[in-house]
Amino acid sequence: MTALPPIHFWFDFISPYGYFTSLRIESIAARHGRRVRWRPMLLGVTVLKVMGLKPLLETPLKRDYVLRDLRRTARRESIALGRDLLAPAMNPLPAARVMAWLDVHASTHATAFARNVFDAYWGHGENLDQTPLLQHALRAAGVEDALAAVALQRSPAAELLHASVDDALRAGVFGSPFMIIDGEPFWGYDTLGAAEHWLVHGT
Amino acid sequence: MTALPPIHFWFDFISPYGYFTSLRIESIAARHGRRVRWRPMLLGVTVLKVMGLKPLLETPLKRDYVLRDLRRTARRESIALGRDLLAPAMNPLPAARVMAWLDVHASTHATAFARNVFDAYWGHGENLDQTPLLQHALRAAGVEDALAAVALQRSPAAELLHASVDDALRAGVFGSPFMIIDGEPFWGYDTLGAAEHWLVHGT
Repeated sequence: MTALPPIHFWFDFISPYGYFTSLRIESIAARHGRRVRWRPMLLGVTVLKVMGLKPLLETPLKRDYVLRDLRRTARRESIALGRDLLAPAMNPLPAARVMAWLDVHASTHATAFARNVFDAYWGHGENLDQTPLLQHALRAAGVEDALAAVALQRSPAAELLHASVDDALRAGVFGSPFMIIDGEPFWGYDTLGAAEHWLVHGT
Repeated sequence: MTALPPIHFWFDFISPYGYFTSLRIESIAARHGRRVRWRPMLLGVTVLKVMGLKPLLETPLKRDYVLRDLRRTARRESIALGRDLLAPAMNPLPAARVMAWLDVHASTHATAFARNVFDAYWGHGENLDQTPLLQHALRAAGVEDALAAVALQRSPAAELLHASVDDALRAGVFGSPFMIIDGEPFWGYDTLGAAEHWLVHGT
């Protein structure tokens, strides 16, 4: 029997709705016999450069709404949100580079690493943009130190991240979270219900 | 016993997700003992002028996604979508003006009128931007011809629409659909679940 295609879960670590999705995507997939491939993209490329839009928290009106919606959603779904939402975003590149490297070279650890980064950043307000902190997240994901040292080198991880963002753009991915299931795109945390409907009914 | 505050449902007739919401908002409200006040806003003012964003269907990447999501949602929820989604949008001003007038002067007919416009435009692809068609929608909403003639006059309807859009901006409304329940904002068709959670739990 052929395994069903995986769910492609695209995210940027600085995306709060990406974080919310990261907490539910595996259980949704498991209910329907799917695996999840977690892949990094960069909102700074898709939204700012390709789409020509402003960052969410620099868009008048929408900014206030999003802050309120994030707190409300976290409250409703008992999600830890220990970060000051008004604090400057971390530089997502170092963690995204490691993620792109793991996806290619040590994929069994990629999901755990991503969850560790999301949890540290959004759950506890820690900026994982420095090597020692990323090392810790790698170790906690079961990556041995010798391998982690390679993952943390700028090259080839930077090139792999570049390729990952190119893949995202080619697949029509422009936001975070963005799920692709059997070629069908689902954008945003609020589409998880529609995504699960697709997993059940294929439409 | 004091009646619960109404749900404020803001929309632009040219918003497809506004149309989808128009088909469900009354039944959601009724389940929780609420009324709905339907109010016109203009995406051309909030999104384009105030937020400085592009129209949805002129935004690279997002455009293709939205077209797909609209068809998928209509299919999944058996919603009539008889309009060519690539056809130019109608001018929403004439219908929005009438709506603003009805809200103030004949509110018992406002909801039926709005539903008639949404159904004609999105369900059947008819542009309701000409007086005879708006007259028909008013008549079908139970508005007698003498009253309809006043509603269709440019003034004071245009001033009332202007005031309605100002109200929307003051309330933080920037998109369509946009629901405000007990002061709590819900943006987008995909938030109806969260809105209903609010109606039940108040959080």
